[in-house]
Amino acid sequence: MDTAIFGAGRIGKIHAGNLVRQNGVRLKYVVDPDAAAASALAAQHGAGVSSIEAVFADRAIRAVVIASSTDTHADLIERAAASGKAIFCEKPVDLSLARARECAAAVKRAGVPCLIGFQRRYDPTFAAARARIDAGEIGDPEMLIVTSRDPGTPPLEYLKRSGGIFKDMLIHDFDIFRWILGDEAATLHATGSCLTDPNVASVGDVDATAVTIRTRSGRLAQINTIRRAAYGYDQRFEVIGAKGMLQAGNHRPTEVAAWTGQSVSFDKPEYFFLERYRVAYALEMAHFFEALASGKPVKTSIEDGVKALELAEAATVSWRERRIVEF
Amino acid sequence: MDTAIFGAGRIGKIHAGNLVRQNGVRLKYVVDPDAAAASALAAQHGAGVSSIEAVFADRAIRAVVIASSTDTHADLIERAAASGKAIFCEKPVDLSLARARECAAAVKRAGVPCLIGFQRRYDPTFAAARARIDAGEIGDPEMLIVTSRDPGTPPLEYLKRSGGIFKDMLIHDFDIFRWILGDEAATLHATGSCLTDPNVASVGDVDATAVTIRTRSGRLAQINTIRRAAYGYDQRFEVIGAKGMLQAGNHRPTEVAAWTGQSVSFDKPEYFFLERYRVAYALEMAHFFEALASGKPVKTSIEDGVKALELAEAATVSWRERRIVEF
Amino acid sequence: MDTAIFGAGRIGKIHAGNLVRQNGVRLKYVVDPDAAAASALAAQHGAGVSSIEAVFADRAIRAVVIASSTDTHADLIERAAASGKAIFCEKPVDLSLARARECAAAVKRAGVPCLIGFQRRYDPTFAAARARIDAGEIGDPEMLIVTSRDPGTPPLEYLKRSGGIFKDMLIHDFDIFRWILGDEAATLHATGSCLTDPNVASVGDVDATAVTIRTRSGRLAQINTIRRAAYGYDQRFEVIGAKGMLQAGNHRPTEVAAWTGQSVSFDKPEYFFLERYRVAYALEMAHFFEALASGKPVKTSIEDGVKALELAEAATVSWRERRIVEF
Amino acid sequence: MDTAIFGAGRIGKIHAGNLVRQNGVRLKYVVDPDAAAASALAAQHGAGVSSIEAVFADRAIRAVVIASSTDTHADLIERAAASGKAIFCEKPVDLSLARARECAAAVKRAGVPCLIGFQRRYDPTFAAARARIDAGEIGDPEMLIVTSRDPGTPPLEYLKRSGGIFKDMLIHDFDIFRWILGDEAATLHATGSCLTDPNVASVGDVDATAVTIRTRSGRLAQINTIRRAAYGYDQRFEVIGAKGMLQAGNHRPTEVAAWTGQSVSFDKPEYFFLERYRVAYALEMAHFFEALASGKPVKTSIEDGVKALELAEAATVSWRERRIVEF
Repeated sequence: MDTAIFGAGRIGKIHAGNLVRQNGVRLKYVVDPDAAAASALAAQHGAGVSSIEAVFADRAIRAVVIASSTDTHADLIERAAASGKAIFCEKPVDLSLARARECAAAVKRAGVPCLIGFQRRYDPTFAAARARIDAGEIGDPEMLIVTSRDPGTPPLEYLKRSGGIFKDMLIHDFDIFRWILGDEAATLHATGSCLTDPNVASVGDVDATAVTIRTRSGRLAQINTIRRAAYGYDQRFEVIGAKGMLQAGNHRPTEVAAWTGQSVSFDKPEYFFLERYRVAYALEMAHFFEALASGKPVKTSIEDGVKALELAEAATVSWRERRIVEF
Repeated sequence: MDTAIFGAGRIGKIHAGNLVRQNGVRLKYVVDPDAAAASALAAQHGAGVSSIEAVFADRAIRAVVIASSTDTHADLIERAAASGKAIFCEKPVDLSLARARECAAAVKRAGVPCLIGFQRRYDPTFAAARARIDAGEIGDPEMLIVTSRDPGTPPLEYLKRSGGIFKDMLIHDFDIFRWILGDEAATLHATGSCLTDPNVASVGDVDATAVTIRTRSGRLAQINTIRRAAYGYDQRFEVIGAKGMLQAGNHRPTEVAAWTGQSVSFDKPEYFFLERYRVAYALEMAHFFEALASGKPVKTSIEDGVKALELAEAATVSWRERRIVEF
Repeated sequence: MDTAIFGAGRIGKIHAGNLVRQNGVRLKYVVDPDAAAASALAAQHGAGVSSIEAVFADRAIRAVVIASSTDTHADLIERAAASGKAIFCEKPVDLSLARARECAAAVKRAGVPCLIGFQRRYDPTFAAARARIDAGEIGDPEMLIVTSRDPGTPPLEYLKRSGGIFKDMLIHDFDIFRWILGDEAATLHATGSCLTDPNVASVGDVDATAVTIRTRSGRLAQINTIRRAAYGYDQRFEVIGAKGMLQAGNHRPTEVAAWTGQSVSFDKPEYFFLERYRVAYALEMAHFFEALASGKPVKTSIEDGVKALELAEAATVSWRERRIVEF
Repeated sequence: MDTAIFGAGRIGKIHAGNLVRQNGVRLKYVVDPDAAAASALAAQHGAGVSSIEAVFADRAIRAVVIASSTDTHADLIERAAASGKAIFCEKPVDLSLARARECAAAVKRAGVPCLIGFQRRYDPTFAAARARIDAGEIGDPEMLIVTSRDPGTPPLEYLKRSGGIFKDMLIHDFDIFRWILGDEAATLHATGSCLTDPNVASVGDVDATAVTIRTRSGRLAQINTIRRAAYGYDQRFEVIGAKGMLQAGNHRPTEVAAWTGQSVSFDKPEYFFLERYRVAYALEMAHFFEALASGKPVKTSIEDGVKALELAEAATVSWRERRIVEF
């Protein structure tokens, strides 16, 4: 199957590397406004450099991977849908909820498969937790606590264009919430602070948040995030049911323990998302092509993308207007 | 030093056992409306059975331990203050905030030492976490996540008289919040659900809560509680600062690990508060008498009791009225 | 029941403190060549200072605790046996195997209860491991690995009188071996080195050992010891059966974890035997008086003391003569 | 660089998969007596099926990977050395120490690079432990405890041709011993038993061993092995120095923890060597080609292969003749 990738940056490279390992899949084109980046990635995988127009004009291209900047996602999704190509798109669909909904409608009309890159659902630890919930190990899930911390606050330039912490960072956590509890929000409360860098406030954002969601059936979820954890990337959740609790924990680079006169110490967690979700990205791509081959729906649909964005928008409102949002 | 104890029930026995181990301290009287319980406890420690009046009339009694039912605390505190006796009182001061404030005023006027039984502050793990924060190990504390789960939902009869989950169960967590962050609440949001037993709703209470507090200086705290954790008593917190995170974890009865064809498993946590805080209760009592001897203030004052109650009352309002409470 | 204790040193204080907490037990006499130590301990527990002769002459004394120096154990055991008093004796029975056997014979003739202080069997973690083996959790135990490390090499003066590392330090590990595998040695190989302090060789001893025992039924055990572990007292074992493995691990003072830019760290183990086995010593003393009350045999008999000494002597021979010892 | 692989079985597939991911490396030939296996593996990687003769006759082949049955290793090493090709050979060099020494001599004469597949040295956890020892974290290493357990006893047919447990299974542990302590054996004691399957004795082997090595400088090492651990593959070591201890632990498939009414449980270790050392095999192959490119020596040389075999042979003698072997 011939494919093309939009975006030859950090995440584009990851996806391209995983894509070419799929049986029967060929990376035909790489598209990126940065010609040097496009060439380098294309050369690495025996692909050609191309343009958006050429990709959509090529009927042999059956699937596209959208790993370009966020503001290009919606257009590319719509064009791919219009030309009947299967879509693998990095999150978020768009920073505008209205625009994301248009994309979802376009995908639905076109009937093309469309996977949104909520890669955490493919992580072996997170997926095992979900599978064990499904198997009834803790009974019906009742409460969820999500911990989501980044190793460092990004530059202000990045933050200005990010859509705010709720859309940029918590979008994943909102997806985890929906996926693990299997329920939708009834009310949401969000608050936040600038704790790691006072300049964050100057761009109208916060760098730490505390979110509480109550679902339609009364389940409770809390999400805590911060942009800077000194010990790196902290990605955990725990879910409680009548029969017990499941915790999904961090991964460590090695299993060395040091016993000294000071303490017993272990590795801190894997540094950031490229390390922590390396396997998840590979499994996500494999799932995409398996879904194409089998005709089964993808696990992380564009509807999931829209729903997570709805929560992110509600959280932004709750934080800005200091009120509880009801759905 | 001669002392008396009010209450010969479960917690009274714990306190009496710790009291008689203090050097130079004698348990002279046990008072309890249940004569058999009073006699048994008195006999165990070589004390006499007495009455409220007789205790306060005995000038030799220098300190009293109030471990009787919650509705008696306020009166006993005021009488002890009026008669110049040092006070060790189980939490809460009272279910009424106004009444608790009267007690605090009475204690202040009398100038007697008054320790309120927030025993968690004396727990070796919790106290070590606080000491390491004070030593600057993680920098200034910025965010706090408190997990507080009980092994089982109590009988409805208990719940009816409990003052509600926020005053009965989270009172401790509100104290932990103030103690660890060293800050006061600016806004508070609380929600809750009946997740473990639908009958809890019939007495106007919930059995699971999610609370978020933003402090005056912008620090964030989240508290999650549930009345029934299948694995027992779950008492953890984690606190983040610019230099790292400290976690205070559960204690296990033994350090046996079993590696089998199914899993690698460890003991679940110690069962409930009598087990988990056994050492904390002993250290709390020792601290009380050390404070009396040295004349230094007690670590958990009646003002702390009032402050925690203020938060519990605000949380009750936030939950009932579905609104954010501002202080 | 009236009792006396011989020895008012470090371990004597521990035993005295535990003894006086037993219901119906009174510490009547403290005996120690150091008059000041004897007086202080006696005063603390309302006992009197006495002499060996006076203790054995007092018919009211029903049990004695022998916590004096090792070279006095055998004589005191024999005198106690001769006068029909129950015996609680610190390990070892004696440094001479022949002398220890005489003591065992004397105890047997007299028919008095005699508990030897292998306190590790009473430790909650170790005892739970054994109970779970007995319950069949891992099937028949096949292999045992014992790790036994002290926080620091003792002074040479101590080592000179210690009987050597195998009798002084590994005596406990040999008892664990017999207790956990429920089997006796067929062959034993021991080797050792001076790794922590070259002066240890000058007193004809080693400070690190590696012992392998093959039992009559073919089970295998390995013991590794060292006198100085930088991180403190390391007391672990693991035992394998057809159905899995049980590990008995170290205890930590607190359950605080610190996540920093360097590592995730926990407390190092409790410092030394007084901390690690505090609960074990209390349970050991309680067991002694329960056994006296019930007439049931003690769990750690003088025969166990003799058997452990046989292994220690064999290990000494194996190390010195560089040969495998067959039993 | 053109390469060939001998052996298209389980381990051959692993090595072929890693080989083709090296930059500038082409798998030209696959050789295996099982034609179907050879064809399948060749087809997967775009290689051709060939013969031993053809491989050595092809001057374009610069490196060979020997992943065929043990009894073919020595001949293939000698032929590769004679034809000047770089060698990557699975352990062991040969079951005969004399034959292995001949191979080492042939490699030395030819001056070709020769990596022996002690893949554990490339494992991230094991390699990190070694690097931290080299960095002085625990001071000079003094004692080493190696735990090495397989998930199941292999069929008797396998055992008959295996060379015995010391050459088949402990060969890796002997290499770890030399690598971690950086020292050579002075004396060795080995014993063993049939604990998992009495039929193992019928082929003159044991399925559980306990080995002790004392090095020239007095360091101590203990190795414990068993062919069947109910919980899977157990690969740990711990090494002690004056400043502390480093432990290299098992890896888990996921980081899910389950807290239930029974216990707190984690995944058991990754199942067997293909899972546990998946990354190690990849890094080993990368190291081989980096060494070829840089001209630097390989980390696991044929001399290391001979040395480990010497220890395995000594252990076999010690066990069979029930005596301590001196080097």
